[in-house]
Amino acid sequence: MNHAYRQEIDLLLEAAWVVPVQPHGVVLENHAVAVDAGRIVALLPQAVAHANYTARETVSLRAHVLIPGLINSHTHNPMTLLRGLADDLPLMTWLQQHIWPVEAEVMGAEFVRDGVELAVAEMLRSGTTCANEHYFFPDVIGATYHKMGFRAMVGLPVIAFPTAWAASQDEYFERALEVHGQFCANALVSTAFAPHAPYTVSDESFERIRVLADQLDVPVHIHLHETAHEVEESEKKHGLRPFQRMQKLGLVNDRLIAVHMTTLSEGEMAACSEAGVSVVHCPESNLKLASGFSPVEDLCRHGVNLALGTDGCASNNDLDMFGEMRTAALLAKAVARDASAFSAPFALRAATLNGARALGLDAQIGSIEVGKQADIVAVRLDDLETQPLFHVISQLVYATTRHQVSDVWIAGQRKLAERSLVDLDVEGMLARTGAWRARIAAI
Amino acid sequence: MNHAYRQEIDLLLEAAWVVPVQPHGVVLENHAVAVDAGRIVALLPQAVAHANYTARETVSLRAHVLIPGLINSHTHNPMTLLRGLADDLPLMTWLQQHIWPVEAEVMGAEFVRDGVELAVAEMLRSGTTCANEHYFFPDVIGATYHKMGFRAMVGLPVIAFPTAWAASQDEYFERALEVHGQFCANALVSTAFAPHAPYTVSDESFERIRVLADQLDVPVHIHLHETAHEVEESEKKHGLRPFQRMQKLGLVNDRLIAVHMTTLSEGEMAACSEAGVSVVHCPESNLKLASGFSPVEDLCRHGVNLALGTDGCASNNDLDMFGEMRTAALLAKAVARDASAFSAPFALRAATLNGARALGLDAQIGSIEVGKQADIVAVRLDDLETQPLFHVISQLVYATTRHQVSDVWIAGQRKLAERSLVDLDVEGMLARTGAWRARIAAI
Repeated sequence: MNHAYRQEIDLLLEAAWVVPVQPHGVVLENHAVAVDAGRIVALLPQAVAHANYTARETVSLRAHVLIPGLINSHTHNPMTLLRGLADDLPLMTWLQQHIWPVEAEVMGAEFVRDGVELAVAEMLRSGTTCANEHYFFPDVIGATYHKMGFRAMVGLPVIAFPTAWAASQDEYFERALEVHGQFCANALVSTAFAPHAPYTVSDESFERIRVLADQLDVPVHIHLHETAHEVEESEKKHGLRPFQRMQKLGLVNDRLIAVHMTTLSEGEMAACSEAGVSVVHCPESNLKLASGFSPVEDLCRHGVNLALGTDGCASNNDLDMFGEMRTAALLAKAVARDASAFSAPFALRAATLNGARALGLDAQIGSIEVGKQADIVAVRLDDLETQPLFHVISQLVYATTRHQVSDVWIAGQRKLAERSLVDLDVEGMLARTGAWRARIAAI
Repeated sequence: MNHAYRQEIDLLLEAAWVVPVQPHGVVLENHAVAVDAGRIVALLPQAVAHANYTARETVSLRAHVLIPGLINSHTHNPMTLLRGLADDLPLMTWLQQHIWPVEAEVMGAEFVRDGVELAVAEMLRSGTTCANEHYFFPDVIGATYHKMGFRAMVGLPVIAFPTAWAASQDEYFERALEVHGQFCANALVSTAFAPHAPYTVSDESFERIRVLADQLDVPVHIHLHETAHEVEESEKKHGLRPFQRMQKLGLVNDRLIAVHMTTLSEGEMAACSEAGVSVVHCPESNLKLASGFSPVEDLCRHGVNLALGTDGCASNNDLDMFGEMRTAALLAKAVARDASAFSAPFALRAATLNGARALGLDAQIGSIEVGKQADIVAVRLDDLETQPLFHVISQLVYATTRHQVSDVWIAGQRKLAERSLVDLDVEGMLARTGAWRARIAAI
């Protein structure tokens, strides 16, 4: 073929293996991903790629697998600065005596910005390219992600009491609309409503959220049925389980991103499936806070879209989606009493395409498919810890740790290059983290 | 102080922090460990160390914590060559259609040697310095550990059917005694009886094991109450639960290393405590094979010595004791419905001193105490994934991954130096691993 007929593109990624996630469970050998203007333009055998394209940059990854960037579907990344502040404590002691008093002292634009920056560094080094955020100061959160070139859905918080972010219910909604306006045309940052939880949000606020979420066409991201205690308290107070209350308020629909869901009836699972609700499973947080065991295999049997999240660093204590995939796959087997439950290919799907679907972004991200954004992660599989190699996807989920992530692209921009963070002032970031540590430890 | 009065020693390790494990939960700042002739001779503030000692080698670890080498109290390391061969399968399909047919083809001296070599490399890179082995060809296993300078307790297998290792019950015992004789004076390698499980060992063989274990003064390392199914089948066949049968046979004593123990009554836990039985908890294997949830917090409440193991790489799929500590601590909280259960300091103790005690080696290893063997691991805590740093032990258990292990000493010999394996032919090892992969994949 004549060179003149080759299409010019920005980037060609050649890898030993590509796992596109869609189609499910497929492993392509010696393929290449062609990227132009931030999007995937082809996924094809390397020889064909060389015949068809001339790339301004070619990256050859001879011992690597390419996967879609991982999507952390539930996190509170400013809290990365509270990593390991208080562990091994009952939930209410942890919240009331440690987390809330510290947050009352430190929460503000600088804390949020510095926490998100540290989180982005950790996420890039562990193959995550998109975070679903649930915290205060979404304006700062969104601006920080935008500045760092990282993809995020930023929650617009609503909670029944005043915080540094908003003094009244009306102010929560005013600021929510402002922040939505700031990011509604942003290529990387989008928004969702983020009511804290049924026990901290009034019916009236939920009704406003329902109307506005429809109007703005954004998801509703909420902690729901995190513990059996939450469900019991709601029954006492409202005569309804939280899920039933959400149904009554018209919020059980395909905008709903329901996080945790440890306590569910068969009827509730069927209702989630029918309404197109997405459930975000955070197994490590659920274990660490002794919240309960989510019946994820039953949810899958009902056809519910199941995504994965780490939750915040104060209850995990990392943002490692490789670890979360592994824990989810291991734990689901024991909970379902079935060693074939939650297979490795399903775990990878939950951490990618199902997350994209939960966020309403599955037309843009979540798989390595032509037309999608080039959010792509390269993982080395030649470390001795991943030898011998029989099955690529099993190895990714059960034997690979995040330090084998070598390179990360978001919308075609290289953010991690052979384990180095591109254009990121790591020393400055660690100095700011150290200053926060000193300030927080003194509270 | 006059230089002439300083004691000459082999090695001085200076670190930002030392966690000796004994006393429990203590973190020493800016301390040093003095090592001579393979043993710890002092643990003291750095300034005092400089005044008292002249070391032939000093290693300064300014961003590191020193901990005792981790003890993997249950593993089948030759099976490292079967990592990821067959995942997401029910236990019996996994064993009967995948693991056993492959083992029947490959098991022999070379397979065992090459598997252990790969395992040693992985263990050193993840801070493990001692393995409690349970597999065939213990002569080869022991010789490989001896050659590599790695500490191990090697199980002398007994199982009711012929294998490549022994054709009859008598031969299992003859070979056991031979192998015990080979290693009874070895500085690093010791032995234990390793009956496979109650359902694969006869009463007669158990009786021989009881007599011989007493005579040779070695532990008895067995899979026990791995699943509820095992317990039910024993009740049908023997009219006794496996633990009751072990009691009747006189094996429930302080030699017993009981692995798994997912199904236990209060009475059985009390009996374990009273008899001085050690229980080895393998949380990731129990989850992956859907074996059940061991009531570890209840065992601790009863005062039972609880250690940790990874189990073999075919059901984990790694030998990562950092991951195992974390999974154990997270899972125990959810199982006990108490977020304060299985604290980080306890997880570290289970992975070190409790393991040593299970193996009957607690006078030699398991903590950084004067007189013990210098089995010591340095872990970097300045990676951004372990910032900010509020509590060293929490950070080790909940946020640190194995790739932060920088240096490892066994009996004062440096085996890992700034992440490099000392005197180990990694390329040759990976080439042999690749050859096994090809052979196994073709079966």
